[in-house]
Amino acid sequence: MFSQPLLAAEFLGTVVFAITGALAATGKRIDIFGVMVLAVVTAVGGGTIRDLTINNGPIFWLEETWYISTALIAGLVTFILARYLRYPRRLLLIFDAAGISLFAIIGAQKAQMADLSPLLVVMMACITAVAGGLIRDVLTNEDPMILGGGDGELYATCTILGAMVFVLGEGYIDPILLSYLAMLVIFLTRLAAIFGNLRLPKFIDAGHRLESHEEARNPSKDSDQ
Amino acid sequence: MFSQPLLAAEFLGTVVFAITGALAATGKRIDIFGVMVLAVVTAVGGGTIRDLTINNGPIFWLEETWYISTALIAGLVTFILARYLRYPRRLLLIFDAAGISLFAIIGAQKAQMADLSPLLVVMMACITAVAGGLIRDVLTNEDPMILGGGDGELYATCTILGAMVFVLGEGYIDPILLSYLAMLVIFLTRLAAIFGNLRLPKFIDAGHRLESHEEARNPSKDSDQ
Amino acid sequence: MFSQPLLAAEFLGTVVFAITGALAATGKRIDIFGVMVLAVVTAVGGGTIRDLTINNGPIFWLEETWYISTALIAGLVTFILARYLRYPRRLLLIFDAAGISLFAIIGAQKAQMADLSPLLVVMMACITAVAGGLIRDVLTNEDPMILGGGDGELYATCTILGAMVFVLGEGYIDPILLSYLAMLVIFLTRLAAIFGNLRLPKFIDAGHRLESHEEARNPSKDSDQ
Repeated sequence: MFSQPLLAAEFLGTVVFAITGALAATGKRIDIFGVMVLAVVTAVGGGTIRDLTINNGPIFWLEETWYISTALIAGLVTFILARYLRYPRRLLLIFDAAGISLFAIIGAQKAQMADLSPLLVVMMACITAVAGGLIRDVLTNEDPMILGGGDGELYATCTILGAMVFVLGEGYIDPILLSYLAMLVIFLTRLAAIFGNLRLPKFIDAGHRLESHEEARNPSKDSDQ
Repeated sequence: MFSQPLLAAEFLGTVVFAITGALAATGKRIDIFGVMVLAVVTAVGGGTIRDLTINNGPIFWLEETWYISTALIAGLVTFILARYLRYPRRLLLIFDAAGISLFAIIGAQKAQMADLSPLLVVMMACITAVAGGLIRDVLTNEDPMILGGGDGELYATCTILGAMVFVLGEGYIDPILLSYLAMLVIFLTRLAAIFGNLRLPKFIDAGHRLESHEEARNPSKDSDQ
Repeated sequence: MFSQPLLAAEFLGTVVFAITGALAATGKRIDIFGVMVLAVVTAVGGGTIRDLTINNGPIFWLEETWYISTALIAGLVTFILARYLRYPRRLLLIFDAAGISLFAIIGAQKAQMADLSPLLVVMMACITAVAGGLIRDVLTNEDPMILGGGDGELYATCTILGAMVFVLGEGYIDPILLSYLAMLVIFLTRLAAIFGNLRLPKFIDAGHRLESHEEARNPSKDSDQ
């Protein structure tokens, strides 16, 4: 179906993100079209912002329409199956971890092709991987995962780590091998965050430091949003 | 006042969307400037995202300033009149239906000029028509209409249907006539959704399928937002 | 450290906005990475939207990486210090007032270089100054300051006034002097809004005009968000 393994990877990543976008409608009054909108923005949002900011040639899904159609179909199928299948949430998180690993390094490669500085290569890797999910969270009014809400522990941080490996390893390791290595770093650190409960320190200001209520009050926020 | 009927149509669509943007401030603590911001982003937001992604020449309101000034004036007038006039909400929805009909087909035409594929032509028609309202809903923290919230039943779906007519009819019908026909399809299906209570199926997952509370709990969400 | 006073000003503005972005995490479950994301989007968001829409050359932080790195460092330092220092909120508002003054006029200058019309010069000044904070407010689910929420009284309006001075004064006053004068107008009007409690009229529709509950109900909204 695809000429290269990378394309197959992009296809998988697109499907996975579209599914996470569609499932974000869970428990909300969102209709079938809204679900497909969420599937598309989640799947292509990150790459779109990357291509808009780099502004080096047209946006990726303008040239190859299969990104959009794939996301639409994945969203539609998810909409239909979701009412019959119970899916293990953690399985989805594992797929999502694979998705951000792929998209982050694809973003890093595109940034390198545009001759961006290492800092921006890392930043574009992160944007490509997480911006779609960010738009999804804003549209569905959830605490954005990349800010550490929901299951977002270390979410974007993993992509930063992997992109750093990709940038620092350049010249020392074979590029193809380096790409896979960087993806593996993202995938494994993200799994460690999901299953090992790795955590990043949360923002605490002098005023709230002693309020132990804080931690208790905020989680309830998720539920009523 | 305008050289072409299309311009007159764009003018009307801009005014209508600016009004819906301004009225989104109803019942919220939003000041006169905020109302004008909402008027402008609602009126030009969709076309801006379309032009940014197509990236085929400058954004429409950079060349012709009347789009922005029209939206500003419409927003200001709405701000002033809103405290004296009681408007029938359904009248506004009818104007809005006319607005999305116009903007969708204008978007489809611009996408065709950029030689985009049929799928993208339909997508750009939809983005042009509904993205401004989406930004408005995000800023005012409402459930986005295009996800099926508020009065958004079939909202974007109608623009998709009309854009499909526009794409499929190409070559068979005179372009001008086809444009009006496609706009009519959007306008009528949208009216059917508003007055005929046409509905799209809502997202239901296996976990929530039996929870009849669900439907009851969520609507209350709208009010406290 | 910098070759020009303007660069020093941009540096200060970037730091200030990054701090306001980081402090937006106060009382929320946002981790250290999320705080740095908020710092960056708040600091460079406005200029990014300006450069994307003008589309006249690359986005400013693509060429000079120090904008991003400065925002990252400022966000990190804020994250660390915030739990030990109690800062006077009004001091932050004063810094922020300085920030929007600088960014607004920088935006106006870039818009003039792109030969935009006076209306668009004023609009780009406003976007440059406030769009970053708008994204920050959307991500942290606060009422956007530019709509008049939080401490946002006259927030964007001041930048409009200053930009108008900048546009109208062109040709009559020395450009450098005019820039400083326009910045001063923004800074002073904003201070007047903060300390003098200057207010803009809020949106009132015929339906709500007599509901005195309205004012009472909405403020509570801020607290539980």
